[in-house]
Amino acid sequence: MNDLSFDLASLRQAYAAGADPQEIVKTVYARIAAANDPGIFISLFDEAVALQAARALGAYDAGKPLWGVPFAIKDNIDVAGLPTTAACPDFAYTPKEHAFAVARLIEGGAIPIGKTNLDQFATGLVGVRSPYPIPKNSFDPAMVPGGSSSGSAVSVARGIVSFALGTDTAGSGRVPAGLNNLVGLKPTLGAVSTRGVVPACRSLDCVSVFALTVADAYDIYRCMAVFDDRDSYSRRFAPGVLSQPPAILRLAIPDAGSRHFGGDALAEKSFLRTVDDATALGATVAEIDFSPFFETARLLYEGPWVAERYQAVRAFIQGKPDSMLDVTRRIIGAAEKFSAADAFGGIYKLMDLRRAAQKTWTHCDMLMVPTYPRPRCLADLKADPIGPNSELGTYTNFVNLLDMSALAVPTHFRDDQFPSGITLIAPAGQDALLASFGAVLHEATSVPMGATGKPRPAKAKAANRAMAHEIELAVVGAHLSGMALNGELTSRNARFLRAEKTTADYRLFALPGGPPARPGLLRVAAGKGHAIETEVWALTAEAFGSFVAGVPAPLAIGTTRLADGTTPKGFTVESEAVIDARDISQYGGWRAYMAQNV
Amino acid sequence: MNDLSFDLASLRQAYAAGADPQEIVKTVYARIAAANDPGIFISLFDEAVALQAARALGAYDAGKPLWGVPFAIKDNIDVAGLPTTAACPDFAYTPKEHAFAVARLIEGGAIPIGKTNLDQFATGLVGVRSPYPIPKNSFDPAMVPGGSSSGSAVSVARGIVSFALGTDTAGSGRVPAGLNNLVGLKPTLGAVSTRGVVPACRSLDCVSVFALTVADAYDIYRCMAVFDDRDSYSRRFAPGVLSQPPAILRLAIPDAGSRHFGGDALAEKSFLRTVDDATALGATVAEIDFSPFFETARLLYEGPWVAERYQAVRAFIQGKPDSMLDVTRRIIGAAEKFSAADAFGGIYKLMDLRRAAQKTWTHCDMLMVPTYPRPRCLADLKADPIGPNSELGTYTNFVNLLDMSALAVPTHFRDDQFPSGITLIAPAGQDALLASFGAVLHEATSVPMGATGKPRPAKAKAANRAMAHEIELAVVGAHLSGMALNGELTSRNARFLRAEKTTADYRLFALPGGPPARPGLLRVAAGKGHAIETEVWALTAEAFGSFVAGVPAPLAIGTTRLADGTTPKGFTVESEAVIDARDISQYGGWRAYMAQNV
Repeated sequence: MNDLSFDLASLRQAYAAGADPQEIVKTVYARIAAANDPGIFISLFDEAVALQAARALGAYDAGKPLWGVPFAIKDNIDVAGLPTTAACPDFAYTPKEHAFAVARLIEGGAIPIGKTNLDQFATGLVGVRSPYPIPKNSFDPAMVPGGSSSGSAVSVARGIVSFALGTDTAGSGRVPAGLNNLVGLKPTLGAVSTRGVVPACRSLDCVSVFALTVADAYDIYRCMAVFDDRDSYSRRFAPGVLSQPPAILRLAIPDAGSRHFGGDALAEKSFLRTVDDATALGATVAEIDFSPFFETARLLYEGPWVAERYQAVRAFIQGKPDSMLDVTRRIIGAAEKFSAADAFGGIYKLMDLRRAAQKTWTHCDMLMVPTYPRPRCLADLKADPIGPNSELGTYTNFVNLLDMSALAVPTHFRDDQFPSGITLIAPAGQDALLASFGAVLHEATSVPMGATGKPRPAKAKAANRAMAHEIELAVVGAHLSGMALNGELTSRNARFLRAEKTTADYRLFALPGGPPARPGLLRVAAGKGHAIETEVWALTAEAFGSFVAGVPAPLAIGTTRLADGTTPKGFTVESEAVIDARDISQYGGWRAYMAQNV
Repeated sequence: MNDLSFDLASLRQAYAAGADPQEIVKTVYARIAAANDPGIFISLFDEAVALQAARALGAYDAGKPLWGVPFAIKDNIDVAGLPTTAACPDFAYTPKEHAFAVARLIEGGAIPIGKTNLDQFATGLVGVRSPYPIPKNSFDPAMVPGGSSSGSAVSVARGIVSFALGTDTAGSGRVPAGLNNLVGLKPTLGAVSTRGVVPACRSLDCVSVFALTVADAYDIYRCMAVFDDRDSYSRRFAPGVLSQPPAILRLAIPDAGSRHFGGDALAEKSFLRTVDDATALGATVAEIDFSPFFETARLLYEGPWVAERYQAVRAFIQGKPDSMLDVTRRIIGAAEKFSAADAFGGIYKLMDLRRAAQKTWTHCDMLMVPTYPRPRCLADLKADPIGPNSELGTYTNFVNLLDMSALAVPTHFRDDQFPSGITLIAPAGQDALLASFGAVLHEATSVPMGATGKPRPAKAKAANRAMAHEIELAVVGAHLSGMALNGELTSRNARFLRAEKTTADYRLFALPGGPPARPGLLRVAAGKGHAIETEVWALTAEAFGSFVAGVPAPLAIGTTRLADGTTPKGFTVESEAVIDARDISQYGGWRAYMAQNV
């Protein structure tokens, strides 16, 4: 057990083979002791309590996505029975209820271990703004661990737990991931309830996930992404499943004037290497001016949004101002100079910047940025507690303000063997797309997981079936990938699932008319037809409805019988329309016909 | 011309019959003179300018929805060439460009006449907070005209123009409609751009419409409801078309504890009479507690939202505090006591209230409220400039904060012959639903239009076509009204549109299998078939998508050719499946076949 990696694939394999979750829990506590870093956890469940939770799981249940999975929780998120300190001992209270997200994970079978250190009130990106011992960066104790979710990141990187929850308002779920060779998933705003989380900026806060692989992070996210009627900022986003990323993915990266590495040539080299990886994976890469994003970022600390931090702790800061760290009080206290009119002025400015940023998505699917310009060391922060912190947020601060989702992904180590990472950023709701591409980008590297030295487990096959809320549609003609009308699928966010032939009961006809040229698929008597190539795509009911509404006569949408035994919805044609049409069944599909006849 | 009503139906009829828009313009100016009310307009185009605009229209073009229609514009909305004063002379500027909404109306053929009086900076619901002469209420000069869009309402009520633009933040597009026997359409937030409008609360401001009939108001709204990329608060809402309201419409009204008429028994009697009207029209009426709505309303003036008004005129109020009316400066100046933290605290509170309000729509389709508790007179306002104003906003203040759309509709006159009205309120985007029901409710009364004394023009036939966001589906078998699978339509909130036969190009077959028994409709060679009975239903894309997903083989959804020339989506069948099926085409439809064969 001592050598087992706690990534979900390895853990599930062990459980399926009969491993006892109590043994896993014992290993967790042994690893805590071995780590010998008092800065990681602020509080822990007694080992006996965690063992009892493991026992209470009963027999292995593969239907529970996180059965027997140990996890840590940032100490600004409520776990019933442990104090919530937000790294401010005088602020501490002991909640009676789990935060909504924690409750979902425990329902999913996960075992909570303890509460992790953070920059006080989640205000910082460095991890050194805590009255508790500072967690050590898992690669180099001279470097900052990153924050504010410092202990969460280090607990995962060191292999103590399978995953940890962080929070992310300005980058706290991404920067520590980048500094500890982890995946950091910062979901769409509101996709995961923040009920039971000490607010930083309530309108911008996200519960985030630190994990060893993208697939792990996404599984954990899916378990938590449940609409919470009691959190007014909760939004309904049905999380998709991971799939192959689109064949053509349009990335945008900062242009030369927008790329900042603080003079760190290794950081720049590492980023450009990952750009090459993305290109090799088939992505197109455009360089764009990030000025509007950087302008947005300045609103967060220099503008009225700092008043959200003030509002979150107003009674506390007014009653016990000396209970806060100097640096935290200085930052949050700056809110006092902003009026309500300033706040609305800032909101108007943000609305303009959101509108401007929205245009980005007309010509690209996601942004790719360095997770931070360069790693910083503890000594830097001692000399200047603010400047290096601000620099670390260069590529993270604007994301939540602009209602974007983000995923920090480890990339090749730098030449000095310190980890490096990029962050993928997409519009709200595109968490599945980010993870789908993030997974292949991570796979393109040979980096071990976190600071464990262990290689990633073999990649699981991506699902090729529609989810419960989706409808499968088999296309046979101009809607096939790369063909004239494929955009009618991709513009509706349809997901490619699989290529599959029909049963041998069909005939394919080249219809008159066009452009675009289109075929008609007609079912004929059993055994009197051909197997025809199709592609199966998944669409939401709304997307499917609008797609079908646009299908012109003589085509229609019926049910297609596929060789794999499935019967998705699919194209058919009015028989009257093919009486004089050319039978092209012998080509076996529209793509082959078009290749030889156009 | 002098007697012509300027409602759109009458005006279009006159134009179609050859009327000259210059004659209409001359009549407008003659009516301005005859009205003898210097309070209505703050500025007017010279008659020669308006005549030139009329000439420039050229030949009658029925394709322009507002060809030759004269209109007035509230004086906080820019019209190029006339000053924008916001009823504060020292604030005035003369814009070079029309406001976006005004430009859309002029493109649609409308002729701007002049700028109308208002409560200064649109802050008020009374119409008496202006340094200009106060417009006279069009029914009783002792009563307030209502505000803030006072001049706009009176200009339409007196028949001077066909319609007028107002703005509505807290009820300024509804209260004056209710006090002048007009329709007041307050669209969904962002559906009409506010670019070129002096902000009141920029996050809550709407451009509104005063008109003589619901159909007029909705036509004008549709002409303006165009997404504006340059207004960050603009949202994409494709306005639907008016149709028959749903057969079952669930109304909610304030319960006894939430009904406030300020002791005015005639107001209460009038409201209850309209509740009876709604019931007679087939609506179900539930009584609900309005406390959460009233709590929301208090945020607007007692909470930090007043800081939006301050932010809008910050430089002006700081530079020229004495240029404002005392009452206006007192209200807006109250913003100075709110901090940015207060603003965010208010926003959190509003998010909670929005979430609570959202639950309303699970059990009702729209709210129906009195437009105001009771009419107030000028003397009341002299005695207390604030209290009666607040009372007038009882049923309007919460609407924009909660992102709802609203429509003020005239109802039966009170027993004292003063007009009365109700306001229908629905979630964002439901403007078409409001207008569809508002129109039948207005038709249920015999009140004349505005203060013109003229009856409404004969009702146009309701559309039996799908709205822009809906999809038409022709059904031929078990989905027909009253048949076995009709519930698959009604449970998806499908709307019945019309019964219509196909062209004579189809054959109908009784398919084997069932229950339920089902037919298959197959298109055959032109002229070789029969006309088959169908029913056309309207579904949203999502409802249509889930419906199609459930259609089993050998049926499919293609395109059906109907005798009325339309080609809705509709059922078809795989030809292979009907080879041995019984041809029942001679029955002319499934219903006739089932009546004789089951």
